[in-house]
Amino acid sequence: MIDSNMEKLCVPGFRAGGVASGIKNGGKKDLALIAADEPAVAAGIFTTNSFKAAPVLHGIRQIKSHKVQAVMINSGCANAATGDEGMVDAERMAAIAAGNLAIDKRLVMIASTGSIGSRLPIGRIEEGTPGLVESLSPDGIEAAAEAIMTTDRYPKIAARRVSIGGKDVTLCGIAKGAGMIEPHMATMLAFFMTDASVESDCLRRLFKKSMDQSFNAITVDGCMSTNDMALILAGGKAGNRPIRRHTPESAIFLEALLEISISLSAMIVRDGEGATKLIDIIVEGARTRNEAKRIAYAVGRSSLVKTAFYGGDPNWGRIISAAGAIGIPIPPHETELYFDGEPLFRGGRGVAGNEEKIAAIMKKDTISVLIKLDMGTAKARVFASDLTHDYIDINAHYHT
Amino acid sequence: MIDSNMEKLCVPGFRAGGVASGIKNGGKKDLALIAADEPAVAAGIFTTNSFKAAPVLHGIRQIKSHKVQAVMINSGCANAATGDEGMVDAERMAAIAAGNLAIDKRLVMIASTGSIGSRLPIGRIEEGTPGLVESLSPDGIEAAAEAIMTTDRYPKIAARRVSIGGKDVTLCGIAKGAGMIEPHMATMLAFFMTDASVESDCLRRLFKKSMDQSFNAITVDGCMSTNDMALILAGGKAGNRPIRRHTPESAIFLEALLEISISLSAMIVRDGEGATKLIDIIVEGARTRNEAKRIAYAVGRSSLVKTAFYGGDPNWGRIISAAGAIGIPIPPHETELYFDGEPLFRGGRGVAGNEEKIAAIMKKDTISVLIKLDMGTAKARVFASDLTHDYIDINAHYHT
Repeated sequence: MIDSNMEKLCVPGFRAGGVASGIKNGGKKDLALIAADEPAVAAGIFTTNSFKAAPVLHGIRQIKSHKVQAVMINSGCANAATGDEGMVDAERMAAIAAGNLAIDKRLVMIASTGSIGSRLPIGRIEEGTPGLVESLSPDGIEAAAEAIMTTDRYPKIAARRVSIGGKDVTLCGIAKGAGMIEPHMATMLAFFMTDASVESDCLRRLFKKSMDQSFNAITVDGCMSTNDMALILAGGKAGNRPIRRHTPESAIFLEALLEISISLSAMIVRDGEGATKLIDIIVEGARTRNEAKRIAYAVGRSSLVKTAFYGGDPNWGRIISAAGAIGIPIPPHETELYFDGEPLFRGGRGVAGNEEKIAAIMKKDTISVLIKLDMGTAKARVFASDLTHDYIDINAHYHT
Repeated sequence: MIDSNMEKLCVPGFRAGGVASGIKNGGKKDLALIAADEPAVAAGIFTTNSFKAAPVLHGIRQIKSHKVQAVMINSGCANAATGDEGMVDAERMAAIAAGNLAIDKRLVMIASTGSIGSRLPIGRIEEGTPGLVESLSPDGIEAAAEAIMTTDRYPKIAARRVSIGGKDVTLCGIAKGAGMIEPHMATMLAFFMTDASVESDCLRRLFKKSMDQSFNAITVDGCMSTNDMALILAGGKAGNRPIRRHTPESAIFLEALLEISISLSAMIVRDGEGATKLIDIIVEGARTRNEAKRIAYAVGRSSLVKTAFYGGDPNWGRIISAAGAIGIPIPPHETELYFDGEPLFRGGRGVAGNEEKIAAIMKKDTISVLIKLDMGTAKARVFASDLTHDYIDINAHYHT
């Protein structure tokens, strides 16, 4: 799925590629590389899971310099729960990329996604990397997006071209993730490239902000992975004056970044394991943004709510029950619930008379759920998927 | 399912019954009554959901006197999210029971379970109650247990006879609940009768303790209901000296109460909507009991863990990932994981060589999952169900 306002998908100053190295069966692409012509300003966000995978531990250390020139990612093996050998393999993977690109290995980030608990087939990565480097091209973004997929049904790419300070600036992101999707980066990988010039501190803050409203506001199954990572590389080829905080330029940049982040995160939910519907949950009138988000998540995470949407059942009782269960003292009589603008619950009870309209809404593949509270002015938005038979099929038999 | 060490299921001083009043279709029992010969010492625990159903609000008020003589329960309609009319209906239901039993309505508790959002069919309850009162009998506990069922596959009863202070004392509990099962009483109703004489303050504390280790330590789907309630009535017919706190008698009473509570709560999980397996999760070596319970719950609630057990996949990666995701800084290298005593994860990585033993364990319908931490000495235990196709079937189409 590509969401782009550009004719041709490429980011000046970046090349990308993806090849099959034999980590996955069946000749599927499983090794991706993103390379900047020069070291780029970088920011990263990582899983907060206690059982961080080796590439995450490696990345947390690498990102401290805020300079990254290349990112190599493999799918098919997460290199997680692999003990000390896993760290050795992660180091080795970064060194392989650096060697083949002839750059300093301190400029290389790596990421892995796939099964937990198996050692990285480092030999295959070693053999596959020369061909991967050879395949690098400005047009290689789709190949890279394909190579990072696991249970994803399609690659996920979003891009925007905007004008900043009189210069054309491009932002492009690729992402993967279909299960284990939840706050704090879940099993989700996302890599963003931009040719904008952005000051390091400004990039970190804008990136964190955009992630908070996109990748950290989605839920498929409430599970957080050991391997999540989101990175942004700002190469600077656009020639704009470096973007600084609290400027009109930073606002334009953030808006474009938010657009592609939200677009990619919605793609992830829509592609949620077994998902048939996107539930777009908005909570308004909360006391704080944090409470609004907690309520939206409580609804989006509820197995009962998710199965009701799957079944096309406008089960508002489960929604208010989920919202009320997390310890925030919501006054029932001042709470309203709407699906696509149609009221379902108001004044402490269900609304009658619009059952046909609601039934039509339930058939759509994207449904907006608005919970209006009367406790304050804060709001939040969370994307959730439904819970289906296919989710069970996929996860009852996907190996460790 | 009956777990009892007695020949005949009855509690001196109590009568019970269950009839079909037409709230449910198909002539199924839907109205239950438990009546003590005299006002009994009582304690109750209620859902903490903000959207408390009318009978819960009614019960929270009634229990303040700590005196209850009768409990009437209907299934088929939860009388939840029914606004002010719901409260009127709840009051009316209590008055109907009191009138037919010729007792003070302040001695009557009521409970409702079933669909949210519909008004209580109070006319049917009114018509059904005389027959229900007529059916009351010392042997009526099974009928009552049947009448409180919703999606339950079988009634749930546990009873123990123990000797306290030279007297035979009986404890008996009935429970219902199959979905929306989670901490803080979830969609779960449980009613306990005992002929023991127990001081009011002592009863409240022992009841809270036993609930914390049983009904508040189970999870089917992570959803908390608007209607949960657990009540205990101590009638005193056994003639023992009233049980007081911190005595050997209170320890014996608590042990028996814990036994039947844990037995009933395991029945609920085993009967979890669509469940095929009971996952008995024990966390040891945590810093606090609260942290131990949070970790156990994080594992028991994870959709990925639950589907793996359904699929018979010993996916330890999902278990440690779930345990690590909740912000408690678990050191991976000092964490061990066992299924029925067989190690799966140790020293930061998976254990190899016992795959056959593990495969045999995965085929069992009860599996013990032990997570050994090295952070402290606290422990906790949680029962969880697996997540299956039948759960989706049941919940995608069960109406509001």
